[in-house]
Amino acid sequence: MDRAFKLGIAGLGTVGTGVVRLLSEHADLLAERSGRRIEIAAVSARNPARDRGIDLSGYQWCEDPVDLASVDGLDAVVEVIGGTDGPALDLARASLDAGRSFVTANKAMIAEHGLALAESAERTGAALAFEAAVCAGTPILQTLREGMVANRIDRIEGILNGTSNYILSAMERSGEDFAETLAEAQRLGYAEADPALDVGGGDAAHKLAILAALGFGLKPDFGSVEVEGIRDVRAADIAQAERLGFVIRLVAMADLERREDAPARLLQRVRPCLLPADHPLARIDGPTNAVLAQGDYAGPILLQGAGAGSESTASAVVADIVALARGDARPAFGVPASSLESAESADSGSREARYYLRFVVADRPGVLAELAAAMRDARVSIQSLIQEGENLGNGEDTGEAGIMIALVTHKAPARNIRDALHRLGDSPSIVETPLAMPLLMN
Amino acid sequence: MDRAFKLGIAGLGTVGTGVVRLLSEHADLLAERSGRRIEIAAVSARNPARDRGIDLSGYQWCEDPVDLASVDGLDAVVEVIGGTDGPALDLARASLDAGRSFVTANKAMIAEHGLALAESAERTGAALAFEAAVCAGTPILQTLREGMVANRIDRIEGILNGTSNYILSAMERSGEDFAETLAEAQRLGYAEADPALDVGGGDAAHKLAILAALGFGLKPDFGSVEVEGIRDVRAADIAQAERLGFVIRLVAMADLERREDAPARLLQRVRPCLLPADHPLARIDGPTNAVLAQGDYAGPILLQGAGAGSESTASAVVADIVALARGDARPAFGVPASSLESAESADSGSREARYYLRFVVADRPGVLAELAAAMRDARVSIQSLIQEGENLGNGEDTGEAGIMIALVTHKAPARNIRDALHRLGDSPSIVETPLAMPLLMN
Repeated sequence: MDRAFKLGIAGLGTVGTGVVRLLSEHADLLAERSGRRIEIAAVSARNPARDRGIDLSGYQWCEDPVDLASVDGLDAVVEVIGGTDGPALDLARASLDAGRSFVTANKAMIAEHGLALAESAERTGAALAFEAAVCAGTPILQTLREGMVANRIDRIEGILNGTSNYILSAMERSGEDFAETLAEAQRLGYAEADPALDVGGGDAAHKLAILAALGFGLKPDFGSVEVEGIRDVRAADIAQAERLGFVIRLVAMADLERREDAPARLLQRVRPCLLPADHPLARIDGPTNAVLAQGDYAGPILLQGAGAGSESTASAVVADIVALARGDARPAFGVPASSLESAESADSGSREARYYLRFVVADRPGVLAELAAAMRDARVSIQSLIQEGENLGNGEDTGEAGIMIALVTHKAPARNIRDALHRLGDSPSIVETPLAMPLLMN
Repeated sequence: MDRAFKLGIAGLGTVGTGVVRLLSEHADLLAERSGRRIEIAAVSARNPARDRGIDLSGYQWCEDPVDLASVDGLDAVVEVIGGTDGPALDLARASLDAGRSFVTANKAMIAEHGLALAESAERTGAALAFEAAVCAGTPILQTLREGMVANRIDRIEGILNGTSNYILSAMERSGEDFAETLAEAQRLGYAEADPALDVGGGDAAHKLAILAALGFGLKPDFGSVEVEGIRDVRAADIAQAERLGFVIRLVAMADLERREDAPARLLQRVRPCLLPADHPLARIDGPTNAVLAQGDYAGPILLQGAGAGSESTASAVVADIVALARGDARPAFGVPASSLESAESADSGSREARYYLRFVVADRPGVLAELAAAMRDARVSIQSLIQEGENLGNGEDTGEAGIMIALVTHKAPARNIRDALHRLGDSPSIVETPLAMPLLMN
């Protein structure tokens, strides 16, 4: 057996302690599968004294995590501190610049700085690996990069945020509204005290930018992801969707339109959508994550599993470590960073779909006529008025008593839908910001 | 870029031509992802003159596929001839013995001779790869071996035969019986002219033996797979199951009971089962394959996609080729063949489950009492009699007019169920072999 593969670990929160526990519990199994033992040599964490329920006495302690980049004899550094910049990014740069391989679970950092880090890694011959950054232990990056390596992939759809999916599934079951359900999810540990990144869609957007880069062979482009979260989805919307045979899910979607002699056009969007009951993503319940990738030879591949959690995330971190210990060093995004292409942002306004539109309006004559006129003027044709009149109490925006009007449109370009909503923007009849969600078909 | 990676391909049927087409269509993409070009140098097929719609003029032709093992300058041989033994096995042995890496889509050969081939490969330093042998382009072997490498896996369940799943899903929709549905599936190309290996469960058993070996770290043990196919499932059973909230699927299941200081116990079974509607495998429709693997850190991971077809299979074959071209050479079963453990066969008779039992009986007094007595004597307790009396026409075994009695038992060991059926074996009241299917719970 080769000499041991030595690690430095930065961060001993829930994920870091999960990694330490996994490496210890499965030490023999991992040695057999890697062809060498994997050992922790050094660690860094904010509070050395805290009892984490694991024995850390054998490891060198570093006050400053960045020092792990230069501790003698390490084969790789594992970063599970988190944060887009700060110590995580400092450590990543220092490690890769020093030619030391780097494993991270940090989606925000990879979505925003992944290209520069991949370039550093290739310059010094180090490896950069981040399986745990997307869907934790559900090995979607590997599936795209290795399992589907023979395919052009032009479309990826996923449920990438477990908290949002937990909340939407729970609202479905209980009939309760967003605020109550979020509070319950926080009590049960499915939502953070500050849920903004999860329910606002930002967390899913980070993951989507990574998936699109790796799946399509593009430079990560987090900045161009269009993001809308689930805060405005009401229990009444879920009930309406159900009557139509749909469920509401926060869907992250990227597609690439390749063109001859012109840059490809990339669309990346995170937003709540209506999915027909037979759509593979419609069946994803609770905190589960799932990704559906369309290969030109393999066809649609669905991968589903836990999207968070200490043990699941540790599973992915250690999978990356084993690959390094075996001597695999793939380019981080599947091809050398210099081969990653740039894409233009596609014009989402021209994309056609049927839409679910929901208004909360004042209970007075003529409101429906006003809505219908705005639709007509924006060239949006109403397929069916699916409910009129449910009393929703006072509107959130105006405090005025409101009734709900929901409708489904015929296929229309997104910009016409926006135009219709814009025309109604100043109307005193509208007592709450309208909600528009596309119907995704299978 | 490194020098080209040169292939010999044995077999130019639908899969072989799919591989040739993929390698040609994605030549640049694959070169970028592999770091070198992948080129076909030699081929072998039964009929050199047949028009396959692809240009084969640049390749060296071998009359005898086994000659590919010794053609100068090849980096790997790809076998897509098929068959448990014969030329496929001769070629595998010759290639690996000569130290030449070998890629195959041949599930029967790997299930039955995989261990010996893996040993040959390790002896000479060649690689043996067979991603395409299980679920075609849906990369389940890689997911178990690499994606879940940090996990102990103790349970794998799957829908591994697309033909059987297509037929069961079609029976569900149409309400027609097995024979008509099979004929329709054959007309549409979803079933072979000789469907025995598919609907009899043998094909799923081959794949299960490979999954269990790789997932659990065991020597492949195809001989101990307990197999039952779907021929005896009637439309009436599917209708009954639906009323109970279940669907019927051909489920391949392997589980491993690890023990201290004693060989582990392995159970491998392929048989039709009743799945509750919320079971992840209950939602797999048509010719799709799916595998659910339970990792101790990653939790349950579900992978779903096409399980057959020229393009999907080519996707997996080429994924293996790319890995070889990159220089990856994993042990075929995840660990060296000498580290694979042997397991005892678990006693399936002691496994407890609720069972669905369906009888076709003569329409005369006292039959139900006779069934109930046999159950009582075998210590099987009936939870509910779910239907009595539907006339099914003449029984298949006796030609006598029969009526259907279906029931669900309380939890009972499989051996008690077998005992109950055995007690009724000679009864003149039974006009068709009874059907017993376990209820798998989520």
